[in-house]
Amino acid sequence: MNGKEKVVIALGGNALQSKDSDGTAASQLTVVKDTVEILAELSAAGYEMAVVHGNGPQVGRILLSSETAKDVVPPMPLEVCGAMSQGYIGYHIQQAFGHELAKHGIDAPVVTLATQTIVDAADPSFENPTKPIGPFYNEAEARQLEAERGYVMREDAARGGWRRVVASPKPVKIVEEKAIELLWPDAIVVCVGGGGIPVVQNADGSLEGVAAVIDKDFGAELLAENVGADTLLILTEVEKVAVNFGTPDQVDLDHLSLEEAARYCAEGQFGSGSMQPKVEACMKFVRANPSKRAIITSLAKAREALASETGTHFTYA
Amino acid sequence: MNGKEKVVIALGGNALQSKDSDGTAASQLTVVKDTVEILAELSAAGYEMAVVHGNGPQVGRILLSSETAKDVVPPMPLEVCGAMSQGYIGYHIQQAFGHELAKHGIDAPVVTLATQTIVDAADPSFENPTKPIGPFYNEAEARQLEAERGYVMREDAARGGWRRVVASPKPVKIVEEKAIELLWPDAIVVCVGGGGIPVVQNADGSLEGVAAVIDKDFGAELLAENVGADTLLILTEVEKVAVNFGTPDQVDLDHLSLEEAARYCAEGQFGSGSMQPKVEACMKFVRANPSKRAIITSLAKAREALASETGTHFTYA
Repeated sequence: MNGKEKVVIALGGNALQSKDSDGTAASQLTVVKDTVEILAELSAAGYEMAVVHGNGPQVGRILLSSETAKDVVPPMPLEVCGAMSQGYIGYHIQQAFGHELAKHGIDAPVVTLATQTIVDAADPSFENPTKPIGPFYNEAEARQLEAERGYVMREDAARGGWRRVVASPKPVKIVEEKAIELLWPDAIVVCVGGGGIPVVQNADGSLEGVAAVIDKDFGAELLAENVGADTLLILTEVEKVAVNFGTPDQVDLDHLSLEEAARYCAEGQFGSGSMQPKVEACMKFVRANPSKRAIITSLAKAREALASETGTHFTYA
Repeated sequence: MNGKEKVVIALGGNALQSKDSDGTAASQLTVVKDTVEILAELSAAGYEMAVVHGNGPQVGRILLSSETAKDVVPPMPLEVCGAMSQGYIGYHIQQAFGHELAKHGIDAPVVTLATQTIVDAADPSFENPTKPIGPFYNEAEARQLEAERGYVMREDAARGGWRRVVASPKPVKIVEEKAIELLWPDAIVVCVGGGGIPVVQNADGSLEGVAAVIDKDFGAELLAENVGADTLLILTEVEKVAVNFGTPDQVDLDHLSLEEAARYCAEGQFGSGSMQPKVEACMKFVRANPSKRAIITSLAKAREALASETGTHFTYA
């Protein structure tokens, strides 16, 4: 590449907190500083980037705090917790990133946009919500929340409690897309955090927040498609996608065509809540952009993967 | 004016919540919808704008929630609560504003930027913090917070409790200023919320959040200066600034020169925690921009004030 490659980077949870995180803001900032050190190297190497991050643990803590304090302060709706997490996480990323860029002599602004993502009110996931969020309750509390707030509650027998479940609809449109295009590539944009704040569009055109969780990799994919990115780079905990994962027959994959990826998906090779959506996001991007590529790798290997030296590369054929 | 006037608008607390607010997100959104109806009319009339909002009550609730739940979820530092409030409030404004603009056939993106504001670590306000924030405590709890977290606690005898006090330093630089310039005027930018997330700059150039509260009118003023706005418009609860306020001799002011404003300030005509900082922000703007104007008026009178039909207008001479 000539160093002007436009990359949408999706950061996994491990880019924002360590496995043994104490949940404090200080510990998040420590991990974020390590993460942006790597991102700043990509920037110094000439890659233009937008950054999408997950927000699951952060929203979980905001919700838990809000629900614990509910007799003192009115609890916040889920989509507002998502908006709050975008401000919180984005602030840390932009603060740390700016400093790392300065070390490379780069003066580009890093900026976080609160981002809404439109989902279809008719998305089938609303009929059968499965994504657990927030604290655990006992059955009596769960029934009360169903009655008082209209929540859908499900028992998690393995962990001995009840939790609210919400839909995980597919992202349809990123509302603030035009502003992102105005900023890119002069600024590095942190956006679509947590997949975006989920909203539905009413008949009069107005938007309205909904209790849902959007997969951040699908959010990043939609952004990459719509802003004309060259590459979708999904960073996770492993260097390469594998088949027969965790068995003696495990094979780490360097390359997947759409056809191969579809076959492995059909075989159930990828964890439905973890690797499968990342693979699907990559497939969607190269299907929409047959001349472009999508990559899954680890944060530590990001630069080598962009240089085609490692990672799992998805291409159309 | 030719309708291309660039205006930085500072929204007072009443633009985000009603006096009898129940503190819910839903009630905030209701008030925000009314507010942006007026802002959209300004946009339709050709004014280009950036919007700065306060965040006192919102940060107060986030802090109260966080402190109430502190044994369950690690409490968030004040500056992170500020970042969260920017996401929360900005999300509501951009969602509602976009819909109002569409009614006028305007397709400009409305977007919220997480914004850091650099303050001077040597600002005298850090020596004598006076801004009360967060919940009330009894004396024993207050002493414990002083010992455990290094908070400065003050007794509020009138309200029967102890509260944390923090500094209210002057804003020195808006970190994300360049990104704001990239967006303006193609997008309407909501930024510098709550005066910005207060940060200090360390010797190595890195930024670090500090527990402080920046006056949002001073933040709006700095923004207006630095992005070359034509007008600083501070919206509050009254149509005009008054002298001898609340007495039979009250005079509502149409115009203030720098010299007149300085004299009234010296006389103590304006409430030190309310109107005085707004007047000072307007004075600072016209002092830095002798050919430009600053206006204080109410939200309802914003359009008439921009048309020079009401409000208190500050000019250099």
